[in-house]
Amino acid sequence: MRMVDLIAKKRDGKELTTEEINFIIEGYTKGDIPDYQVSSLAMAIYFKDMTARERADLTMAIVNSGETIDLSAIEGIKVDKHSTGGVGDTTTLVLAPLVAALDIPVAKMSGRGLGHTGGTIDKLEAIEGFHVEISKDEFVNLVNEHKIAVIGQTGNLTPADKKLYALRDVTATVDSIALIASSIMSKKIAAGSDAIVLDVKTGAGAFMKTPEDAKELAHAMVSIGNNVGRKTMAVISDMSQPLGAAIGNALEVQEAIDTLRGQGPKDLEDLCLALGRQMVFLANKASSLEEAEEMLKEVIRNGKALEKFKEFIANQGGDASVVDDPEKLPKAKFLIEVPAREDGVVAEIVADEIGTAAMLLGAGRATKESEIDLAVGLMLNKKIGESVKAGESLVTIHANRDNVEDVIRMIYDNIRIADHAEAPVLIHDIVTE
Amino acid sequence: MRMVDLIAKKRDGKELTTEEINFIIEGYTKGDIPDYQVSSLAMAIYFKDMTARERADLTMAIVNSGETIDLSAIEGIKVDKHSTGGVGDTTTLVLAPLVAALDIPVAKMSGRGLGHTGGTIDKLEAIEGFHVEISKDEFVNLVNEHKIAVIGQTGNLTPADKKLYALRDVTATVDSIALIASSIMSKKIAAGSDAIVLDVKTGAGAFMKTPEDAKELAHAMVSIGNNVGRKTMAVISDMSQPLGAAIGNALEVQEAIDTLRGQGPKDLEDLCLALGRQMVFLANKASSLEEAEEMLKEVIRNGKALEKFKEFIANQGGDASVVDDPEKLPKAKFLIEVPAREDGVVAEIVADEIGTAAMLLGAGRATKESEIDLAVGLMLNKKIGESVKAGESLVTIHANRDNVEDVIRMIYDNIRIADHAEAPVLIHDIVTE
Repeated sequence: MRMVDLIAKKRDGKELTTEEINFIIEGYTKGDIPDYQVSSLAMAIYFKDMTARERADLTMAIVNSGETIDLSAIEGIKVDKHSTGGVGDTTTLVLAPLVAALDIPVAKMSGRGLGHTGGTIDKLEAIEGFHVEISKDEFVNLVNEHKIAVIGQTGNLTPADKKLYALRDVTATVDSIALIASSIMSKKIAAGSDAIVLDVKTGAGAFMKTPEDAKELAHAMVSIGNNVGRKTMAVISDMSQPLGAAIGNALEVQEAIDTLRGQGPKDLEDLCLALGRQMVFLANKASSLEEAEEMLKEVIRNGKALEKFKEFIANQGGDASVVDDPEKLPKAKFLIEVPAREDGVVAEIVADEIGTAAMLLGAGRATKESEIDLAVGLMLNKKIGESVKAGESLVTIHANRDNVEDVIRMIYDNIRIADHAEAPVLIHDIVTE
Repeated sequence: MRMVDLIAKKRDGKELTTEEINFIIEGYTKGDIPDYQVSSLAMAIYFKDMTARERADLTMAIVNSGETIDLSAIEGIKVDKHSTGGVGDTTTLVLAPLVAALDIPVAKMSGRGLGHTGGTIDKLEAIEGFHVEISKDEFVNLVNEHKIAVIGQTGNLTPADKKLYALRDVTATVDSIALIASSIMSKKIAAGSDAIVLDVKTGAGAFMKTPEDAKELAHAMVSIGNNVGRKTMAVISDMSQPLGAAIGNALEVQEAIDTLRGQGPKDLEDLCLALGRQMVFLANKASSLEEAEEMLKEVIRNGKALEKFKEFIANQGGDASVVDDPEKLPKAKFLIEVPAREDGVVAEIVADEIGTAAMLLGAGRATKESEIDLAVGLMLNKKIGESVKAGESLVTIHANRDNVEDVIRMIYDNIRIADHAEAPVLIHDIVTE
């Protein structure tokens, strides 16, 4: 088998066999096939796409390029949730205890944030003492006993994906649904869960700018998951503005606590229920999505979800009393209000730019080496569709520096006030096949 | 300027600017831009093509990547002829003296052959004493005084093309008209002629299998030439079967002598006149192609073309008496006839396979390092459309080994005899813009 012939085959719009796809990914991982052939193939895939079968094969070839996590020691159906990345996305902090409160095992492998999207581990570390450096055995035991644990990323998972992604990034071959879907799904499958719920974001702050593109990606991922034996569903959710009100690590922990109490922002709660009901349904704990949603609402109402959060924090060394005493979370020195300069209705909050403003305060990492400040961030006091009067606060800046002119300028540049505007649709679609 | 953005621009079907194309080729030649970005761009060009302006810019960027030959010391309009490569193509040996006999300067830089296509220098070296190792000054003086000289390839011409071609060869990006045309034209332009006549071959033995593809390539090259200030014309000629009767170095020299005498194979003579009249016209020696053709026929009739060939041989150290005494050319030890096994009409002579059969005898190089045997080769006794009786010779093998079973088998496998067949059209088209 010669790589140049396989590139030509894809270039001519033909379907690569399972054996051919394995040959490519194995050869690339080992270094036998050079970057310059793979980038040419990636561009051919960009133009000629891959069939559902090819995508599933590519995903499994990437999974098999490295180690995989074996969660078989954990009882029950393990359901993982994955978001394609947004700003102020506090759903994981809410969903993990919410679902675990229904006796569904949540065995979460998480990462740190880069750029304007926060990482779950960073957020949890805003709770004093909380840590994810636990052994594999400890992780399994915690999930079996308490149904919830979070561990940092371990093992050499999907090395082919790391190599491929770095190559695609510099060869203008990122924007291929086949390649994006295989990349995401390979990581989820290598992480060992039995079922997967996907939150595919759409809008200015998301990778997929339109609901149509997001839906295409969601279908692609759901199809791959189901084709390789992992039950998969997806929600297409809005990221034209940040989710909820909080952007920043400690601020988002507080927001998660509020939401588990039933007092969080409406959009965050709605999205958590939309994703949570799919998780409950895929875990075979409910016979319909409606029933699953009722079960979730019940554990919020009766306090079990919040109790599970406390239990989870304590299990991993954290101070669970923060849940009842928010003063124990890291606090920024300066609170600066950003007032509206005119009367009107908020018409636009450019999510990625607002996320970048929070990063400038220290809430996110500009590079992998950046230190982050857990206390700082932004609280959105108005969301799209809400009326505002001149002088009323649009955003509260939580900062540890007193000069935040740069951040204020970015906020004004990226929040537009108009005469009329409506709140965006939060859930664009549900994708189950 | 970032290469990844330029790849994305071409991928999205946009036109690259002159500056951008120069940035790419300069960066690639220097090694600042890696292979994996250029292969991805090449695949994007395969799918999205390049405009006439981009092609001209790419050609000149490749020309400027290395040295160029300055022929300004040679008086008159220098017209070069280029063939896209065929089997038994003796046109250069005929055209050079034919055109020079009309006082048109022929300053030819030539190469050696590889694979089943012979090189002009190899053929000329079948004449005892002939050599192309002459100085640049000697070359210029010869052309000024005698209107004809051949020199071996010198200088670091078009290094970007060498690098690009090697990359395209292993990344399935050879088959792009934009890239093929720029590659060929950059080499011709770097070689310094004022005007260019192209012989674009089509058929089983050629790179372009159909006349339509050949015409597209011809248009692309003629357009590049004219856009960069070199007057260019092209002939689309048949290569479904080998040109003329001779395949092999000394055999082709003999065939060229016959043709310069007006006694050569009809197809070779016709093609030489078709190409030659464009050369004469572009050199401003005739006001029409018809007039140019008459002038060429006249120097064949009056013997001036043959005299010019003798003069040319003597000037470069060769024994010009071979022209009148063919016995002085290298002779093979064995002449083996390959008889037809049935009555009928020759319907197919697969050019590239017959060329490979000649290579197996030693007439061509399998690798760059192979030694060639100037005496050996094949003489086609029948061409497509000619009747043949069982037992009559189809081909005469000129060999220096007595067992040529492998060559005989290849000949039978690649010459088909049928009930009816017509001679193929020799000149498919003339492309002048």
